[in-house]
Amino acid sequence: DSRLQTLLREGHSSTQSSHRLLAYSDALISIIATVMVGNTPSFELRESLQGLLTTKIGVYLMTFLIVTVAWAAHIRLFQVVVRIDDCLALLNLACMMLITFLPYTFSLMATFPENILGILLFCGCVMVIGSVIVLYAFSRPFLLNEQIQISENQTFYKHHILKVIMKVPIMCFFASIFSFIFFQLSYVLLAIVIFLPYISQCLKWCRSKAIGQVEETPDSMLFYTYLPNEPLSKERVEAFSDGVYAIVATLLILDICEDNVPDPTVVQKQFGGSLTAALRLYGPEYLAYFGSFATVGLLWFVHHSLFLHVTKATRFMGLLNTFSLAFVGGLPLAYQLTHEFPPNSHNELEAIQISCVIIFFAGIFQLAIWVVALYNEQETLHPYVRYGGREHVLMLAKLALYPCIALGTFFLTCILSKFSAPIFHLMEITVPFAFLVLRILVRLGLLNAGYLSVVWL
Amino acid sequence: DSRLQTLLREGHSSTQSSHRLLAYSDALISIIATVMVGNTPSFELRESLQGLLTTKIGVYLMTFLIVTVAWAAHIRLFQVVVRIDDCLALLNLACMMLITFLPYTFSLMATFPENILGILLFCGCVMVIGSVIVLYAFSRPFLLNEQIQISENQTFYKHHILKVIMKVPIMCFFASIFSFIFFQLSYVLLAIVIFLPYISQCLKWCRSKAIGQVEETPDSMLFYTYLPNEPLSKERVEAFSDGVYAIVATLLILDICEDNVPDPTVVQKQFGGSLTAALRLYGPEYLAYFGSFATVGLLWFVHHSLFLHVTKATRFMGLLNTFSLAFVGGLPLAYQLTHEFPPNSHNELEAIQISCVIIFFAGIFQLAIWVVALYNEQETLHPYVRYGGREHVLMLAKLALYPCIALGTFFLTCILSKFSAPIFHLMEITVPFAFLVLRILVRLGLLNAGYLSVVWL
Repeated sequence: DSRLQTLLREGHSSTQSSHRLLAYSDALISIIATVMVGNTPSFELRESLQGLLTTKIGVYLMTFLIVTVAWAAHIRLFQVVVRIDDCLALLNLACMMLITFLPYTFSLMATFPENILGILLFCGCVMVIGSVIVLYAFSRPFLLNEQIQISENQTFYKHHILKVIMKVPIMCFFASIFSFIFFQLSYVLLAIVIFLPYISQCLKWCRSKAIGQVEETPDSMLFYTYLPNEPLSKERVEAFSDGVYAIVATLLILDICEDNVPDPTVVQKQFGGSLTAALRLYGPEYLAYFGSFATVGLLWFVHHSLFLHVTKATRFMGLLNTFSLAFVGGLPLAYQLTHEFPPNSHNELEAIQISCVIIFFAGIFQLAIWVVALYNEQETLHPYVRYGGREHVLMLAKLALYPCIALGTFFLTCILSKFSAPIFHLMEITVPFAFLVLRILVRLGLLNAGYLSVVWL
Repeated sequence: DSRLQTLLREGHSSTQSSHRLLAYSDALISIIATVMVGNTPSFELRESLQGLLTTKIGVYLMTFLIVTVAWAAHIRLFQVVVRIDDCLALLNLACMMLITFLPYTFSLMATFPENILGILLFCGCVMVIGSVIVLYAFSRPFLLNEQIQISENQTFYKHHILKVIMKVPIMCFFASIFSFIFFQLSYVLLAIVIFLPYISQCLKWCRSKAIGQVEETPDSMLFYTYLPNEPLSKERVEAFSDGVYAIVATLLILDICEDNVPDPTVVQKQFGGSLTAALRLYGPEYLAYFGSFATVGLLWFVHHSLFLHVTKATRFMGLLNTFSLAFVGGLPLAYQLTHEFPPNSHNELEAIQISCVIIFFAGIFQLAIWVVALYNEQETLHPYVRYGGREHVLMLAKLALYPCIALGTFFLTCILSKFSAPIFHLMEITVPFAFLVLRILVRLGLLNAGYLSVVWL
């Protein structure tokens, strides 16, 4: 009988670390969040940039935010559920299947705003994710966080956590019911679901700046994973960001491969069989590709340098990171725009300006992460990058580089009417050297400071 | 003066762990390796599947193998270079830019086989990667593996490693020179570069099986990172595989989003404004999507279960993993094929058979990894999954499930002419339940064995 018990216990203990499942989920979600940008219905709006922008960017940003909300819920859930078994892995994959379907739902909602099918699909998605996994995991206590397992008042904790987690699915349940009666109301409910964490986060931050740090009640400290200030899992933020940067960098080559392989018969007839001459036509496109890749790569590089120095990411830093990534995800759109219009047209300049705006905001939100981190530098930063630390100046310079360049280029396009896309892309390619120069300058500055202090002593 | 030295040393010590850089590189390379499958020139070959297959699959497989070779070289390099600084990170990004350009080079080579431009681009790529990063890293010894740093005969080691690493770039250098004189020869050289590791690996394995384990000379043991039997970094194999599975799973939704949003005017005219009726037309496509996602997700699940039990991956297991991934990358092609042809046509059955073949090989190579791991189970597997271990039967059942199902379906399509794509996709969706049933059966079997042994005692 004790042997049977051992076997049963062994069965229970055949759980796994959730690390790779989470990494895979991060990769899937980041791709899904970003991929919509190249894919929104285009409607042949070449003549008016404004019309193109409102539909394309609108659908893209909504999808990105929604998917990010789903990702945040996923993080929150797997901070409670720390181990998985086969069944939970399969359930998670089923959820991923539903999440990857969300962009399609959103395309439908954008084209048919009065139809409730999109709302129903979305709400169904959230309810399944929020309830099936939670209920399964809570029925097997050995999968949960140790803090919950060893706590004395286990059932009370569980109820509290369930209450926190189930809020969103319940709101979605009401939204799906209202969609049959009065569908505008369900849009309002969904907007609340999506923006509530952001709004409450901002309000909390503003209040804490205005009237000083609010003391946390010791009672809420126990539920640290369910406080809005709970630290995000730094690994998952990095994995999600890597996914976005990787897919954005490679979306570009897809366009190149699709459109820029010349037809053999055309090469034979028009270029006398010379492939090099035929490819010369695509020169600006290659330039655009390398320029855009350099920009995405360097924005990743800055992000990487920043998170190397961050020891703990707060919720607010995660929020700023999401905004930065949303703009990074818009870069393929900027790339499409800049190489789509005829050279020296008014639209080409407008497209360059849009690129500058996107790059500026992607960079400025990274800078904002740094500023917010400096506010709580004791908790969030390594000692040697804190204010006045050894690497502090270099980090600040790295973070300020892209916003400055984007702003400068924007004003250049206003002044110089000769400014063209090739010049813009050449500028993008030269930025890495600016980083190296920056590094040398800061090193020299440090050395000089060192010399001076040696001499002074 | 000692203060200056300290400053200099601090400058040197401002290096970083390469972990995230490698994860990002893995993500980029896996996307690039896979993304070509949806993208090869299509030539309007609808009437003949054979023609479609030879061009599409040919270009795809070549690109996948080439990119995998580049990835293997990247792994080998970063097993020597264990720390990075900013400059190396930027150099690595530049290399990634060149690697992401490789698929385009290959499309060019497929369309213009007699043109040397593709060869030159590819060779340039390899030479830059192989020489720039190596030379930079070797000029800064504090970036290298500790084993090299603390060794007595440092310069000798370095020369040996350089010789090993530089072989491929030098062959590419010759290939690019021969391309001007006699381009067929450069293709032969490139084929040697690509397939040499695979061939030598297979030969070595066959020989060791035929005449027993070859004793390794103690001299070569010192250069363990440059032996063909050196263990691969398990994390990087997992990261690369995750990237391939993630992009393959999400490539499918791109097709859905692009083609299956109905036009509002069409809905109004043909379906009397009923979106549900309009969407009903796309039913088979949704089914195909969910079926394919389930297959990709479960193949990932099997891979995840397998690598959970693997403690160390040998080169040969890595090779088998690459082959398995190459077939997984072909799944979007199978998806396109199965939902492209009219129902109940001869082509539809052929497309289903191709899907089965792809799934069969993807599964059988995963099984092969397991068999090879069992051969050296002391080194490569956790104790409780070794032959006869607790989880051994379950793991074997999991790995055998997909090859069996694919084989069974293949023969079903030969016998039943009524077999259609929707039935096939429904089968794909029911497979997860087969996994759960399998789990329960094996658990019951274990329990029974437990009972029996209890009774018997």
